[in-house]
Amino acid sequence: MTSARSALPVVAIVGATGAVGVELLDCLARRDFPLASLRLLASPRSAGRTLPFRGEALPVEVLTAEAFDGVDIALFSAGGSISRDWAQAAVRRGAVVVDNSSAFRMHSDVPLVIPEVNPGDAKRHRGIVANPNCSTIIAAVPLWPLHRATPIRRIIASTYQAASGGGAAAMAELEDSTRAALDGKNFVHRVLPHPYAFNLFSHNSPMDVASGYNEEELKMLNETRKIFGDDTLRIAATCIRVPVLRAHAIALNVEFATPVTPDTVRAILQEAPGVRVVDDREANRFPMPVEASGRDEILVGRIRSDTSDPSGRSVALFVAGDQLLKGAALNAVQIAELLQAA
Amino acid sequence: MTSARSALPVVAIVGATGAVGVELLDCLARRDFPLASLRLLASPRSAGRTLPFRGEALPVEVLTAEAFDGVDIALFSAGGSISRDWAQAAVRRGAVVVDNSSAFRMHSDVPLVIPEVNPGDAKRHRGIVANPNCSTIIAAVPLWPLHRATPIRRIIASTYQAASGGGAAAMAELEDSTRAALDGKNFVHRVLPHPYAFNLFSHNSPMDVASGYNEEELKMLNETRKIFGDDTLRIAATCIRVPVLRAHAIALNVEFATPVTPDTVRAILQEAPGVRVVDDREANRFPMPVEASGRDEILVGRIRSDTSDPSGRSVALFVAGDQLLKGAALNAVQIAELLQAA
Repeated sequence: MTSARSALPVVAIVGATGAVGVELLDCLARRDFPLASLRLLASPRSAGRTLPFRGEALPVEVLTAEAFDGVDIALFSAGGSISRDWAQAAVRRGAVVVDNSSAFRMHSDVPLVIPEVNPGDAKRHRGIVANPNCSTIIAAVPLWPLHRATPIRRIIASTYQAASGGGAAAMAELEDSTRAALDGKNFVHRVLPHPYAFNLFSHNSPMDVASGYNEEELKMLNETRKIFGDDTLRIAATCIRVPVLRAHAIALNVEFATPVTPDTVRAILQEAPGVRVVDDREANRFPMPVEASGRDEILVGRIRSDTSDPSGRSVALFVAGDQLLKGAALNAVQIAELLQAA
Repeated sequence: MTSARSALPVVAIVGATGAVGVELLDCLARRDFPLASLRLLASPRSAGRTLPFRGEALPVEVLTAEAFDGVDIALFSAGGSISRDWAQAAVRRGAVVVDNSSAFRMHSDVPLVIPEVNPGDAKRHRGIVANPNCSTIIAAVPLWPLHRATPIRRIIASTYQAASGGGAAAMAELEDSTRAALDGKNFVHRVLPHPYAFNLFSHNSPMDVASGYNEEELKMLNETRKIFGDDTLRIAATCIRVPVLRAHAIALNVEFATPVTPDTVRAILQEAPGVRVVDDREANRFPMPVEASGRDEILVGRIRSDTSDPSGRSVALFVAGDQLLKGAALNAVQIAELLQAA
């Protein structure tokens, strides 16, 4: 393989057969991402399979260092340990890595990018651009234009997170365990730490025992501060896994520096990129996971004054977004588009 | 029927065949509620059925005014319009009504009682004692002992509410629609306003269009103030229906008048009546609906400092309680026990 490059980039997907990997293929195709060729990389277990892309059956190859020869953009979505093991190998071979794992997100020399929020940060990469946590993205896309208009001081977030955050295996466990429950059969859960059928539980990411916050909650705090470029932002999150397949919802209570009306919030969000306002009080129609699933936009509704803050500075919202799309694959492809435009 | 009364009360259940009605029978039986006889009243549709109670098959009779003759305590659980139509008829015939609907809760001459919180209020009844809203009870039981120790100023509540709040028909719709989804079949929802299988939605109670809050959320605000006897309490609730069968969960961010540590909160809750602390950070084991279902206690965990309030005055919690038991039937029977003890 030579280092000669055509005008169009060679793109690789690491973890192509996973829940996010499949969506990466779909996002590249439907957004007409300009590429010379697409290389699908995965574990030896998945090698030999093919995946459809633009009418072709692309082979899945084994992930090796040499597989990155000639690759311009490598989209990693195979978990933190794969990223830690292989991202530098890709960078050394000249690729820019867009990493969907949490491995590098808080590194000071790795930009953490939501294209609707901080697109300029993508240009400052040194080989790796990190894709933020899904809950962080889904809350940040609607909060950013509000923060630009009136600085946000405090966010209280309670999440309603889908199975897809745990990958295809967690989605299957939700379906299988629910079917067993309906049939009155026993089910031994293997993927998630708690029964999932008609149940919910505190997020299964590792717990910081000293603080009592799990990693998902700390990501929402630390990543949002980094993306917004504001270390004074105060955030408390409660992250809960609910029996929903692929879209997260989040209840947000947001305190601004000065009074803000719900009408102002609604007007800003109606113009905001990546946001769709679904806020029909008369019809009791608001964001729902089934309507967010398969959609690119973050749905936002229940826009109202926070009755617990008489100062008029606090507004409550309810948002929903596809965890696999804007929460993962779509945002990564948008970052790749930024890199191409640079 | 004469007005002569034995020492033990005659008890009637209105709405005996409903989801809460069945639990009322069970609570009376397992708590050995002392009664002379139990009368089951329901719509003509249900009359003629029998329900088991203490080894007997009790007939379900048609609800009429005369059916309250000789009744000392009438437990109403058949919805607000039945309560509005029939509660005064029961009171006029000498019964004390414990009403599970929202019909009278905010009336100034009707006590609204959680026995662990304001048992003394039950004595001030003028024929009717109201049983609070389920989400209100499930939050208030653990919050009250904290409020007594250090006054609570502000509560932000995001609920994860079960199907059972919509009655047995909503529970059946959750199961039926989920089975259809797993089988790839269409399902036309009739009981709830939105698809429920692997979905969640803003609570289906009527919306106050001007404020953007639904009735469930306004109940949490107004009822908690009345029960706590504190009209200055600031509360903002977001009430969401999740695909869970019979236990509600609630994320609570609580601000106190002065700094409070999580250890203090935990110590108070470990001694609190009606509460069980489930807060194992090492094992990632916290309150879950499947473990709250069928239990009398409210499970409380995720007890931690609120990272969005550097003053040290705010604590976050996650609670779960059986909507049909402490959220409805158990609390009503406990009120009846208070009335008997008076």
